[in-house]
Amino acid sequence: MRSILIKNVLRDGELCDIYIKGETIRRIGRDIFTDADTVLDGRRMAVLPAFVNMHTHSGMTLFRGICEDMPLKSWLDAVWKAETFLDEDLIYWGTRLACLEMIKTGTSTFEDMYWNIDVAAKAVSDSGMRAMLTYCFLDGGDERKQRTQRDECMRMYELSRTWPGRIMFGVSVHAHYTVSDANILWAADFARKHSLVLNTHLSETRQENEAHRERYGVSPTARLASMGLLGPNLTAAHALWLDDGDIRLLGQSGTTVVHNVNSNLKLASGYRFMYNELRDAGANVTVGTDGCGSSNNLDIRETLKTAALLQKAWREDPSAMPLDELLAAGTVNGARALGLAGGVVEEGALADIMLVNTDSPFFIPEHDFKANFIYSANSSCIDTVICNGKVLMSGGRVDGEEEVLTMARKHAARFVEKIKQ
Amino acid sequence: MRSILIKNVLRDGELCDIYIKGETIRRIGRDIFTDADTVLDGRRMAVLPAFVNMHTHSGMTLFRGICEDMPLKSWLDAVWKAETFLDEDLIYWGTRLACLEMIKTGTSTFEDMYWNIDVAAKAVSDSGMRAMLTYCFLDGGDERKQRTQRDECMRMYELSRTWPGRIMFGVSVHAHYTVSDANILWAADFARKHSLVLNTHLSETRQENEAHRERYGVSPTARLASMGLLGPNLTAAHALWLDDGDIRLLGQSGTTVVHNVNSNLKLASGYRFMYNELRDAGANVTVGTDGCGSSNNLDIRETLKTAALLQKAWREDPSAMPLDELLAAGTVNGARALGLAGGVVEEGALADIMLVNTDSPFFIPEHDFKANFIYSANSSCIDTVICNGKVLMSGGRVDGEEEVLTMARKHAARFVEKIKQ
Repeated sequence: MRSILIKNVLRDGELCDIYIKGETIRRIGRDIFTDADTVLDGRRMAVLPAFVNMHTHSGMTLFRGICEDMPLKSWLDAVWKAETFLDEDLIYWGTRLACLEMIKTGTSTFEDMYWNIDVAAKAVSDSGMRAMLTYCFLDGGDERKQRTQRDECMRMYELSRTWPGRIMFGVSVHAHYTVSDANILWAADFARKHSLVLNTHLSETRQENEAHRERYGVSPTARLASMGLLGPNLTAAHALWLDDGDIRLLGQSGTTVVHNVNSNLKLASGYRFMYNELRDAGANVTVGTDGCGSSNNLDIRETLKTAALLQKAWREDPSAMPLDELLAAGTVNGARALGLAGGVVEEGALADIMLVNTDSPFFIPEHDFKANFIYSANSSCIDTVICNGKVLMSGGRVDGEEEVLTMARKHAARFVEKIKQ
Repeated sequence: MRSILIKNVLRDGELCDIYIKGETIRRIGRDIFTDADTVLDGRRMAVLPAFVNMHTHSGMTLFRGICEDMPLKSWLDAVWKAETFLDEDLIYWGTRLACLEMIKTGTSTFEDMYWNIDVAAKAVSDSGMRAMLTYCFLDGGDERKQRTQRDECMRMYELSRTWPGRIMFGVSVHAHYTVSDANILWAADFARKHSLVLNTHLSETRQENEAHRERYGVSPTARLASMGLLGPNLTAAHALWLDDGDIRLLGQSGTTVVHNVNSNLKLASGYRFMYNELRDAGANVTVGTDGCGSSNNLDIRETLKTAALLQKAWREDPSAMPLDELLAAGTVNGARALGLAGGVVEEGALADIMLVNTDSPFFIPEHDFKANFIYSANSSCIDTVICNGKVLMSGGRVDGEEEVLTMARKHAARFVEKIKQ
């Protein structure tokens, strides 16, 4: 089993050494002297759990910048047109590019909803990251698609048994308005039977929410609840347009909610995310970046900053979403949702951590490290990322990043050419 | 005269060379072959005008992180208490730290409102940056202070003649509710007589705005207009709580308005900045970071991203604040306000520019450089900053930064100790 020893790193303001063996943190203390395959110098560094990005579409990373400053209708048309040109190389290198960017910005783990997840699994495996890849139902009521997607889901589930242990299989219901009732129920049942994570978009836009109420007479949350979807294994992305009853349902069921603040802002979907109310009701609140087609990057630290600033502003309360809760939303809450014993820097936890380099103007004064990290620095302060006990980045360098940049650039150019035609 | 030649850099998507001599850009074209003291390799780089930060309190950089997640009243108490401990070393090294951070994030020029501007001038001079330092009136109606501040303003103005040409002198009226009418009028008159920039906080919070209306029966903007303050030489920071009449007055007078979005959000002052309306009325809209006591960093690129996201969200219009307007707000609009022939990359313009390194995942696809720069990258992509024809940063390194970090850290620790007592 490989081992890592980190010497003299700050953890919650105290200097310590951290010893990692295999996939977990084995010891944290002063003056650990033991052999290790890798010894890292933690001076001027602080350790934090690595981030968990709870909602993205990593294969869409090559959509970055192709439809800027557009009204939503034109944006959707542009994205859907672009999706018709996708092929396996684009998914593979788009996902590799996503993984490289996530590692560079301190994320070890992500929950993904996209197509060709066998290709994505190969890309994630090659990157060294941890991920929950979900097979995505989107049938638009088409009966043939309903059948083929069920078959495909079962086939992918079987295939997922060959994936490395750090890559998990889950099921996505794209949204309450894009999947037939029959398949929503089938997916929920399949997830229940196999103890899988379920993933869905929920009440992202006002229009979609109002259309649902008109058609069904209840909110999307109430209808999904009546279909038995809510619960600790459900990840509900966006969840922007909720009423008090929805918040109660999500809270009582212990559902995980993902706040995709930058995407919500950029696409003008909404900004009054009910953080306090969801937290108080008992929901598990996490954060995500969404895909690069909507919010351009996969940077969770930046996402956390925007999330907190926005809560403070629209609530007119500068004490809203304080730093410890903010960091929990970006780390341990996501780990819990995915059934992982991680998201914390503690003995026995998964060795999914980052080292933050504090040797820059952004960390002076050294009075409040968390505030400096979230509100002052940019994500280039993240020096080292360890996932599953393996160093994925050190000194800001990721092994093999040149190849990823070269290949992603090449395929991105090909993709952009096709779109322009 | 020193000279710089930048070879093979992207400017608006076209490869070119840029020749700088003395303080200005002399030639832009293909294949410029000429001797230069410094030759920079522009491959994988894009050139942009350097940022202009139109509102900050640079001496407050050592206040970073000392009062987080606090309600406004506690925040003000903490800041005012901290200010009683300020001394010249803290101002000098706080300002040097501010300058270092601004250079690192692509800013060449800033407008400043703080105390001991002779000390600040020394710090800015030593940093190589360009700045508008304003003498700040804040008398709270105290008659003795009114007199001494007028004397001090005249003394500083005389002293400013010894400053380097890139450091300019202006006058600040702290705010319409903190300065006596007599001194508001005196400051405006002094600025008019000597052709100086005037600077003020305007309608930052709802409470301050409503209190003004109750006391005077008109808005702060209307009252300042009646006192003859509005005009192209006035910089009005925040300007969040404006009615239609205020917007018309600011527009017709060509006043410069500064949007300090991160500070507005973090202190929960407001978020509905009237960008479209101010622009359409004829105001000169710029951006600022405010001081690090309120918004923690001095990063204009990040500020621009937040500003655009927020406009899109609260207007429910994803096409709001498009990229070209956004970049103008961060560059040329600020230069114009300060009377500078800069903020553009053109022959004859001041050589205040930055080179952006695009060799990272954030710039793939290479389809929309501006979107990648603002929405995808973080500010560590800024590789080179040139101010007044002098290279202040190259390869992400600023000459003498170690000394600034060491000294700022030392004085910051001393400051934090005092505050804690």
